[in-house]
Amino acid sequence: MDMEHTFGHSGDLPVKELLPGFFGRMVHTDKLTVAYFDILANSVLPEHHHPHEQVTNVLSGALQMTVNGETKVCRAGDYVVIPSGVPHSAVALEDCRVMDVFQPARDDYR
Amino acid sequence: MDMEHTFGHSGDLPVKELLPGFFGRMVHTDKLTVAYFDILANSVLPEHHHPHEQVTNVLSGALQMTVNGETKVCRAGDYVVIPSGVPHSAVALEDCRVMDVFQPARDDYR
Repeated sequence: MDMEHTFGHSGDLPVKELLPGFFGRMVHTDKLTVAYFDILANSVLPEHHHPHEQVTNVLSGALQMTVNGETKVCRAGDYVVIPSGVPHSAVALEDCRVMDVFQPARDDYR
Repeated sequence: MDMEHTFGHSGDLPVKELLPGFFGRMVHTDKLTVAYFDILANSVLPEHHHPHEQVTNVLSGALQMTVNGETKVCRAGDYVVIPSGVPHSAVALEDCRVMDVFQPARDDYR
């Protein structure tokens, strides 16, 4: 592991529109990914699952999340822990800022 | 791994003053820890290191961080990647809100 320490500004990272309305900026380390998302109101993340653990942190706006059949509207300060392999989906009820953490790193997003 | 999915609000988590002026609320999963810190101005985190990878995300305020001898003042939207074992320290120049991510989980904080 020769990873160097890094200082950066999330707004300077390249932006990827991973799904319509989901604009992500990613920091990848050896073992995890931190993804800063700006999500437009009414954007939809269809149900999916992945082997990565995920912790979603809502910074602003309102994100309706469904995890393993349970649905909640998440707002600033709310978090959601999604274990490996658990199905989840989301709908942005308002424009949102969200910070997602994945372990291991999302090599598919590099 | 029998971890369940969880919906929560960071402000409802129990708070621990880990060092004078550093008030942390923690979410632990199997493999990572997300720590929400409220840090009082002028609080000091002495230099230390740990085997966990760390990504520090400043949400508000001004946090002066020194990592492996490099010093920067970090503000909202700034992030710092601290690889395993790399020495780091911090001084809060203002009251700060910070979200730290650790991999593996900080079992010492459970």
